[in-house]
Amino acid sequence: MRQPSLLRFGHRFSIEFQSKRSRVFSSSPTSQRFKLQLSKTQQPEMAPEMTTLKGRPLDRTAVDSLLRRRFFYAPTADIYGGVAGFFDFGPPGCSLQANIIETWRRHFVLEEDMLEVDSPMITPYAVLKSSGHVERFCDFVAKDSVNGDILRADHVVEEILEARLRGDKEARGETVEVAGNAKKKKKKKLKGETATEGLKLDDAVVQEYSEILAKIDNYDGTGLSELISKHDIRNPSSGNKFSLPVYTQNLMFAVSIGAGKLPAYLRPETAQGQFLNFSKLLEFNQQSMPLASASIGKSGRNEIAPRAGLLHYVDPEGGKKHHRFHEVADVKINLLDRHVQLAGKTNAIPITLGEAVQNGAVDNETIGYFIARIQLFLTKLGLDPNKIRFREHMENEMGKLLYFCVDAELLTSYGWIEAVGCADRSAYDLSCHTKATGVPLVVRESRKEPLVVTEFVAETHKAKFGPRFKKDRKAVQSVVDQLTQDVKEKLSLELKENGKITIDVPEVGDGKVELTSELIKIEQQTRTEYTREFIPNVIEPSFGIGRILYSLCEQVFWTREGSEERAVLSFPPAIAPTKVLLVPLSANPDFKPLVANLTKELRRQGLSTRVDDSSASIGKRYSRNDELGTPLGITVDFQSLKDETITLRDRDTTAQVRAGQDEIIEAIVRLVKGTETWSQISARLPKFEGQELE
Amino acid sequence: MRQPSLLRFGHRFSIEFQSKRSRVFSSSPTSQRFKLQLSKTQQPEMAPEMTTLKGRPLDRTAVDSLLRRRFFYAPTADIYGGVAGFFDFGPPGCSLQANIIETWRRHFVLEEDMLEVDSPMITPYAVLKSSGHVERFCDFVAKDSVNGDILRADHVVEEILEARLRGDKEARGETVEVAGNAKKKKKKKLKGETATEGLKLDDAVVQEYSEILAKIDNYDGTGLSELISKHDIRNPSSGNKFSLPVYTQNLMFAVSIGAGKLPAYLRPETAQGQFLNFSKLLEFNQQSMPLASASIGKSGRNEIAPRAGLLHYVDPEGGKKHHRFHEVADVKINLLDRHVQLAGKTNAIPITLGEAVQNGAVDNETIGYFIARIQLFLTKLGLDPNKIRFREHMENEMGKLLYFCVDAELLTSYGWIEAVGCADRSAYDLSCHTKATGVPLVVRESRKEPLVVTEFVAETHKAKFGPRFKKDRKAVQSVVDQLTQDVKEKLSLELKENGKITIDVPEVGDGKVELTSELIKIEQQTRTEYTREFIPNVIEPSFGIGRILYSLCEQVFWTREGSEERAVLSFPPAIAPTKVLLVPLSANPDFKPLVANLTKELRRQGLSTRVDDSSASIGKRYSRNDELGTPLGITVDFQSLKDETITLRDRDTTAQVRAGQDEIIEAIVRLVKGTETWSQISARLPKFEGQELE
Repeated sequence: MRQPSLLRFGHRFSIEFQSKRSRVFSSSPTSQRFKLQLSKTQQPEMAPEMTTLKGRPLDRTAVDSLLRRRFFYAPTADIYGGVAGFFDFGPPGCSLQANIIETWRRHFVLEEDMLEVDSPMITPYAVLKSSGHVERFCDFVAKDSVNGDILRADHVVEEILEARLRGDKEARGETVEVAGNAKKKKKKKLKGETATEGLKLDDAVVQEYSEILAKIDNYDGTGLSELISKHDIRNPSSGNKFSLPVYTQNLMFAVSIGAGKLPAYLRPETAQGQFLNFSKLLEFNQQSMPLASASIGKSGRNEIAPRAGLLHYVDPEGGKKHHRFHEVADVKINLLDRHVQLAGKTNAIPITLGEAVQNGAVDNETIGYFIARIQLFLTKLGLDPNKIRFREHMENEMGKLLYFCVDAELLTSYGWIEAVGCADRSAYDLSCHTKATGVPLVVRESRKEPLVVTEFVAETHKAKFGPRFKKDRKAVQSVVDQLTQDVKEKLSLELKENGKITIDVPEVGDGKVELTSELIKIEQQTRTEYTREFIPNVIEPSFGIGRILYSLCEQVFWTREGSEERAVLSFPPAIAPTKVLLVPLSANPDFKPLVANLTKELRRQGLSTRVDDSSASIGKRYSRNDELGTPLGITVDFQSLKDETITLRDRDTTAQVRAGQDEIIEAIVRLVKGTETWSQISARLPKFEGQELE
Repeated sequence: MRQPSLLRFGHRFSIEFQSKRSRVFSSSPTSQRFKLQLSKTQQPEMAPEMTTLKGRPLDRTAVDSLLRRRFFYAPTADIYGGVAGFFDFGPPGCSLQANIIETWRRHFVLEEDMLEVDSPMITPYAVLKSSGHVERFCDFVAKDSVNGDILRADHVVEEILEARLRGDKEARGETVEVAGNAKKKKKKKLKGETATEGLKLDDAVVQEYSEILAKIDNYDGTGLSELISKHDIRNPSSGNKFSLPVYTQNLMFAVSIGAGKLPAYLRPETAQGQFLNFSKLLEFNQQSMPLASASIGKSGRNEIAPRAGLLHYVDPEGGKKHHRFHEVADVKINLLDRHVQLAGKTNAIPITLGEAVQNGAVDNETIGYFIARIQLFLTKLGLDPNKIRFREHMENEMGKLLYFCVDAELLTSYGWIEAVGCADRSAYDLSCHTKATGVPLVVRESRKEPLVVTEFVAETHKAKFGPRFKKDRKAVQSVVDQLTQDVKEKLSLELKENGKITIDVPEVGDGKVELTSELIKIEQQTRTEYTREFIPNVIEPSFGIGRILYSLCEQVFWTREGSEERAVLSFPPAIAPTKVLLVPLSANPDFKPLVANLTKELRRQGLSTRVDDSSASIGKRYSRNDELGTPLGITVDFQSLKDETITLRDRDTTAQVRAGQDEIIEAIVRLVKGTETWSQISARLPKFEGQELE
């Protein structure tokens, strides 16, 4: 199977990690915002080195080969040669994914009483036309002038400039351990870049490249074309120049429905299905605000990625306060402000959400609340707080349509990758769909205090208006309808004095139309509004489950030293694909009934279990399951047959305790629920000192 | 948004119920099978009347309007006019779907240690070309000769003939309550069928129509074209004739991947992703058989439907026994045999799986085991055993490729709809992919006893063979390779006697080729095989979650009589979208802390909860939640403030008990887990006789 060139495009990550970001919805921010101050010691920097839990450099090849070997994932249609960028999850990958989604559902949907919506994967053209995706959900791509390869423009600039900077460092005799993957990167041969290896650059050039990289996401098409031209960026796999200028390419998959060929797309995001159902959700919520909805499912944007997204609808008036913000004000995040990035720097600053909202670095309480909830969710999954940062979008990334947007980025051997977006989409989408369909997607609420409105009102005498103006009737009426308050006030006086007024209606006769008191009445009137109508603003946190899953695997990977190095994946018990490994000491048939009973009992508690009764040593069997991230192990030995005690082993410390079956199962339930830690368990249950047999 | 005509095609159900069946994989059965005997009283019959749990005729309009009003589902992109056949699930629909899937996962994946696989929604062309989907995953469709409308051929024949039979019954003065939806069907105006209303038919015609309908799934393209022509079947919405013959239309959605436009399709089933990973799954299972895999996700076949499917890989030798068959031998199902259908009848016969396998009505233990597990799964969801039947596929439905196939069908107001397929796909798919890729998808196992094979072997002398035959070399070799044992034995004697043999090679010269002892050696040889290699056969149960969900809603719907009729959805507690409704007696703020604490406690137990503190009466509030199928309700009243007791109400009986908070929560947990029933709870906890306030 031929791999089309697009799939190399932007394909920097080994699992569906083509960038989800789009430059479409970009806005200039309207709020003044505090600039984080940089101390003088903070310098522009490349992506920090990726280290394991034990502080050693991460060997990406080792992680990737483990994940494939144990079938966390594999290339889709592998036996047909695969499809670049498409991956299947095997049993442990599926289980990990299901646990991440279940955690998401509990953390967001249940905890916040969100209303779930499930829409089909296919969205009709008309919807995505209104939302702006048809025209603007695009990336900038550059085409190889000879072989026609299409690459994502910003990614190729990044790749080449980073390679040149590494070459320069080498020439200066500095270490080039970049993002833990130095060996691989050094070896990669970039065509048309013959001189990069070990070529020293001028200091000014180093400075310029670093600054470009820090704000790479901020270049538009013209900017990217200029960079490619000025710095002689070529297709690294062919050495050919690109045809310039770069151009946009839509990221959606087109399909057509049925024989009638109704045009449609695979949905590019789960949000649209929620927007379209806004009125039904509001009704389901008994018309009460605020309101949040959620969707979990796959989206297609030249990658098919599992996503979970939620929309929080908030009243745009009143500063977007959030009634639970005080619960999260002390949550600390690493924040990378847009001003820092524009200054060509990449240092994130630790800050609490309370401070960040107060000083304006985060726009409002509602978005601040969700940023905090995202941070708590990610750490609950087992991601390292030091390897999470929130990067504010820069102007060209965001939108005329977006008000404020930050990405949660996770550190991996590929550098920082965006895994969660958190955007203030304002009233944009609901307004688009209201305009396109004429169905008002609004909230109507009783005003606590009725609103008294006094204003000039112009009423025309319909019965006389028609016969008088005939075919010009509508044109005249339209001008009357659009009169402003000031003009109406002036005209009302004129009408009172002269009994007639003259207005400009360009389409009619000489452009002047006279209206007498018989035809029009303009008076000041007072009315009382009991209902307020508004389009809510939308805060949208959106999660790339596949990216989170892959980053988590890298962040929890480490190797245990011993007679040989053994890989361990330290997933938290609630997230681990399998909770318990059951190992009988030997293949002795006497162990079978006890093992069968334990399996049944653990399954009854909803704990996924794997039995390894192979002939390998106990140490070997545990080690195989450390690779799968199984946090707990039970050994059944001859002692167990006598007194029904069993041992429980902790994956991370390899320490063991021994107790009766019921006590051990109770301990496992608590560890998985998170109501007790291993150190608490090992403090209260008798230690077991029997050696692990290697 | 214009609705293309295809979306009316076959669109007989109000929620994505376009038939999933395809005629592609059809086979003639190779096994002799017991014919179920029909007693004389069993006559051809139309779909039985759909009744509610309380035995009253089901009013489909009432169910459908309830499900839409309470946002179980709604048309996709409703505000844009909708897309026929596409539906969104709202909060209760999502929750119901999630509970059905969770039950499925526990019942199949966990209980049977299946290996889950998750593949992308998009499958490359090459895979579906090999599997036969590109050429043969089609329905027969008929095109309106005037306006070009495209309708599914079998469905339009069915619709028209059923309408004529109803007209006949009317003319005979019989009741026409067909499938509980008589009113609607009667009103529907079928163009070109002016005479159907009340037109009496000849007895012979009634008999002919009934027989056609009983075997409607067995007609091929020629058969359907003949029916349309002979019985003057026209497009019911235009009255126009169809252009004949009918033709096939592929059911898959075409997409292309990336700029290179790699052709692909939305996957038509979840099975292919599992087949392609067979070797990896076998390795994950430590090379041991039998092995089962599972996938949950959406498939696209001109409908986008949530599906769950599993594959059980079984050794084709040894009669496809199943080691747990004895556990299900007593499970009783309603079986509709193919022979009964071909006789023009539709009566299902109650039979246990033990009997059915023994007498050959079900082909083997493994498929019998899964039929039983499907029956148990469906009844666990709350479907009525009397409204479930298993219909064996007829010859033209199944395949050269399928060995045996039954559908689990569910009775609804639309008649019997197929919700689960259970097919023996034999070694077909694995063989296709092996052939296409050269990657052997086989099981290799050590033979317990080495196999000694004695046979005649013909070896040609390669070095001399080439120069002697030159370009004919391959043709001659190919004939040698295909000699049977008998022929080889005869030739070996000839060769020994004459020093030469003559074989027929039609492509070469005069068709006779002489081979001397110098060129060929034919001798009996003995070798020992220690390994056995085989392609496993695959049993595939495949579940249409959307159809199951809709059928369940109809089957658990009933109305409670009282001052006014009130609708109830009697989902089992484990399946119900929300488990508990919390109603404070009034808006008195004193109730708030107690309600908040209960909510928190119930959530901690993982029980989804809804608070209704509106000003409606308690009776009204309960009634609203009966419509959502909420099985349990807690009332907090002034007594609760004094002694912390609360009442628990059962949806189905409206009976109430009163006890302390902990006891009530414990009872709820047991009811939802299914470890205790309401009658047990109400027997052991004090009854509460306080009147429900209407």
